[in-house]
Amino acid sequence: MAAMGGGKEGAGGGMAAQAGRLGVVASVAFNLAALALYLRRRYFGDDDAGGRRKGEAAEVAPSSGKPPVTKDSIINLDHGDPTMYEAFWRGGAGERATIVIPGWQTMSYFSDVGSLCWFLEPGFEREVRRLHRLVGNAVADGYHVLVGTGSTQLFQAALYAFSPPGPAAPMSVVSPAPYYSSYPAVTDFLKSGLYRWAGDAKMFDGETYVELVCSPNNPDGGIREAVLKSGAGVAVHDLAYYWPQYTPITKAAAHDIMLFTVSKCTGHAGTRLGWALVKDRAVAQRMSKFIELNTIGVSKDSQLRGAKILKAITDGYERPPTAGAGAGDDDSSRLFHFARRQMVSRWAKLRAAVAASGIFTLPDELPGHCTFANETVSAYPPFAWLRCDKEGVDDLEGYLRERKIITRGGGKFGADGRVVRISMLDTDEAFAIFVDRLAAMK
Amino acid sequence: MAAMGGGKEGAGGGMAAQAGRLGVVASVAFNLAALALYLRRRYFGDDDAGGRRKGEAAEVAPSSGKPPVTKDSIINLDHGDPTMYEAFWRGGAGERATIVIPGWQTMSYFSDVGSLCWFLEPGFEREVRRLHRLVGNAVADGYHVLVGTGSTQLFQAALYAFSPPGPAAPMSVVSPAPYYSSYPAVTDFLKSGLYRWAGDAKMFDGETYVELVCSPNNPDGGIREAVLKSGAGVAVHDLAYYWPQYTPITKAAAHDIMLFTVSKCTGHAGTRLGWALVKDRAVAQRMSKFIELNTIGVSKDSQLRGAKILKAITDGYERPPTAGAGAGDDDSSRLFHFARRQMVSRWAKLRAAVAASGIFTLPDELPGHCTFANETVSAYPPFAWLRCDKEGVDDLEGYLRERKIITRGGGKFGADGRVVRISMLDTDEAFAIFVDRLAAMK
Repeated sequence: MAAMGGGKEGAGGGMAAQAGRLGVVASVAFNLAALALYLRRRYFGDDDAGGRRKGEAAEVAPSSGKPPVTKDSIINLDHGDPTMYEAFWRGGAGERATIVIPGWQTMSYFSDVGSLCWFLEPGFEREVRRLHRLVGNAVADGYHVLVGTGSTQLFQAALYAFSPPGPAAPMSVVSPAPYYSSYPAVTDFLKSGLYRWAGDAKMFDGETYVELVCSPNNPDGGIREAVLKSGAGVAVHDLAYYWPQYTPITKAAAHDIMLFTVSKCTGHAGTRLGWALVKDRAVAQRMSKFIELNTIGVSKDSQLRGAKILKAITDGYERPPTAGAGAGDDDSSRLFHFARRQMVSRWAKLRAAVAASGIFTLPDELPGHCTFANETVSAYPPFAWLRCDKEGVDDLEGYLRERKIITRGGGKFGADGRVVRISMLDTDEAFAIFVDRLAAMK
Repeated sequence: MAAMGGGKEGAGGGMAAQAGRLGVVASVAFNLAALALYLRRRYFGDDDAGGRRKGEAAEVAPSSGKPPVTKDSIINLDHGDPTMYEAFWRGGAGERATIVIPGWQTMSYFSDVGSLCWFLEPGFEREVRRLHRLVGNAVADGYHVLVGTGSTQLFQAALYAFSPPGPAAPMSVVSPAPYYSSYPAVTDFLKSGLYRWAGDAKMFDGETYVELVCSPNNPDGGIREAVLKSGAGVAVHDLAYYWPQYTPITKAAAHDIMLFTVSKCTGHAGTRLGWALVKDRAVAQRMSKFIELNTIGVSKDSQLRGAKILKAITDGYERPPTAGAGAGDDDSSRLFHFARRQMVSRWAKLRAAVAASGIFTLPDELPGHCTFANETVSAYPPFAWLRCDKEGVDDLEGYLRERKIITRGGGKFGADGRVVRISMLDTDEAFAIFVDRLAAMK
C-alpha cells in the first residue's frame, strides 16, 4: 500500500517550485504549501497514507475541505473558500437540495444538440433564469446562458471570444487596481498569442482591450463601472459577488457579458460551476467553442446538482415562512437572509477587532437601497481589504503569516504590501479565532 | 418566456462561423450544425422553446443526449459518444452506481489540502487504483494520480508541464498520422507561446518535442509505441482505449505519463472526468498547477460519481456470478464483458456490411493474448477507420453525409479524404441503421 501515498507527501516542494514560473502566484503557492506541511504533521504524523488503510471495498467518505481548526491552528483565509454556507445547507433547505443520480443518467456528451451551448443542461439554465428573476440582480431575458467549469473558465472563454482572428498582436487585458489576483495569472499562464495581461486599466492608453469589471470588486468590495470608454474596447463584467448577502442590489445589471458562479452565490465551490449571461450571439458561440476545446463541455453532474441547489433557493423564497417563527427570524429556507445575517455579524466582529487593535483600517461601509430586501442596507463584502498603518510593517501578508494567519498580500492585486485580502466566508470557528488574534495585535 | 429560447435557435450559423477560425475543426462544426438544424426542424418544429413551457417550479428532466433515431434520420457517428453503455447501467450494476449527494456535501474547493493534487477526492483515487489492479492495464503503484475535467484537460496539463520555462521557442507537439483530430486543435487554439502543433511525428526531425502516443490509436485502432527516441523529447501516452472491451490487455503499461478517461472506460462522457498516472513528482505538480489555473480543480460531484461507478465495476468482478446463469452469460455485473460482447457483435455486423457493399475496406483484425480475459482475443476498436476504394469518391465524409451519415473525414487526422472515422459506441438503434445503409452502398 506504500504506493497509495505516492501523491501525498504534501504540496510543499512542488507548488513552491512551480511558483517560480509565475511570480504573481508564488506567494499563494507558498501559503498553501506551508499550510499543507503544517497540517500534515499535525493530523497525519509521519504515516503518509493516514487513515486510509481500511479494507479495499469500503466506502471512502467524501472530502470535507480543510481540517477543523483549534486555537493554535494556522488559519487559512487566503482563498475565498465559502464553507460558511455549510451550516445553511445542513438545515431544512439542504434536504431539498439533495441530488440522486442513477448510474445510467446523462451519459452523453450532449445536453441539447440543437442549442448554441450544446453541453448546457436545460434544467440548469431554467433555474439560473428563475434565480435572476427572484433576485433582480441581472437581466436574463434576451440573454444567452452559458455554463462553465467555474467562472474562471468563462473568463478565459470571454478573452478567447474577443481576441482578434489572424496574426494580430495579442489583445490587452486590463482591470483597475486593486484587481482580482487571478486575472493576470490566468490571462498569462499559457503565454497566449491571443491576449496578454496589460495591468491597471487606469494606466492603460491603448484603443483595443478587454476591461475586466469586477463589481462588487474582489479584493476591496468597491462598486465599479468600466473606466475605459474606447469604442474598440469591450468590458466583461464579473458579477460573482453581486448577490444580496454582500451588497445592496441597486438595479438589474444589463451588460454585454456578465459572469456568475455558484461558489460565491450558494457556497458550493467544489461543484466548479459558473454561468455567463451573454447578449451577442456570435460572442456566446465563441465562448462556447472555447469550452468545447478546453474541456468538451462541463460536468453534467455538477449542472444537475447546481440546478437542484438554485431551485432550493428560489423555492425557499416562494414557500410561506414556518408557522410560529417571526417573519424575520426564519432564515432556514432563505439563503440570502441567512448569509446576510452571517455577513452582518462577521463584519461587526471584524470592525470591533480592528478598533480594539488600533493598527488596522478597513474600507468604509457603503450603504444603498436594495431592491431585493426593499430597504437601505450596507454592503458586507466577501473579502476584507485590511490595511496596516503600523511602522515597519511593509509586508502585512508576512506579518500575519508569522501569526499563523494566511492571507493574500496586496502585491498580487496590483496594490502595495501594507494591505491584504482576507476571506470572510470561512467557517465560524476559523473566523472567530482570526478576529480574536487580530484584536490582540497592537 | 420568449427569452427562454434566446440561446436555442440551433447551432447552425454560430458553429459554422466559428469554424473559420480553426480550419481543422471546420468540418466537425459543420456536421454538428447540419445535424442540429435538421433535428430542430424534425423535433421542435418552429417553436423555439419546444416542450419547455411547463410551470416554472416543475422539475426539468436531465438531458438524455441526442434524440432517438428513425430509419430516415441523420445518423451522427462523428463524436465517440459512448451511449452504447447506457444499456449496461440500466441493469443491476447501475443501481449500485447510483449516487446521492446531500446539499451540504463537498462544498470546499479543497479535497485534501496536504496532497500534491489538492482537488482530488481520495475516494476517486482509491477506485482508480483498484480498477487498474483488477484490469492490469497499467501500473499505478508508485505513480501519482491526478484528476482532470476529462482527459482533454490532462493532455493540456501535460503540454504545460513539459514546456520550457522562460522565453524559449514553443515546444513542438507531434503524433504519427493518423492522429486524434483534437490534438492539433486543442494544442493550437490559444496560440500558446509554450507549445505548438508540429504535425506528423514521422516527419519530425527536431530534438525536443512532446510526442502523443495514443494506443490503441484514435482513429485507426493501431497499437503504438513512441516513434521518436531523442533523449530531449518526452512521450505522453493517451491510453483512453486501453481497456479489455477494445483490445487485448497484453501488459501493464508503465510509461511516464498515462492518460485515461471515464468516458471511454465506462461510457460516462457527460461526467467529464479523466485521470492521469504520472511517475515524476515535479511533472505531476506542474500538471496539477495547470488545472488549478485553468478551472481551480475538478468537479467534486463528478469525482464522487466517478468513484461510485468505478467501484461498481470492480465490485462486479468480485461478486459471484448470479446463480443459474452460465459463467459466460451473466454480464449484468461485468462491464468489460458486456462491452466486449457488444463490440464483437458490432464489428461482425460492420464487416458483413462492408463485404456486402464491396466499395469499402477496414483495417485487419489484430489478435493478442489478453491477460485480463486470459485468452487470445481480437481487438475491436471503438472507432472504425473506413476507407472507400470507389472511383470518384475522394471526399468520403461528404459522400456519407449526403447519405445522412455524419462521420469525421481523414483530413482532420492527417490522412487523406478517402477515409473516415466512425464511432462504434453509439446506441444500438443508430448503429443498426448505419450498417444497413452502408451495406446498400454499391
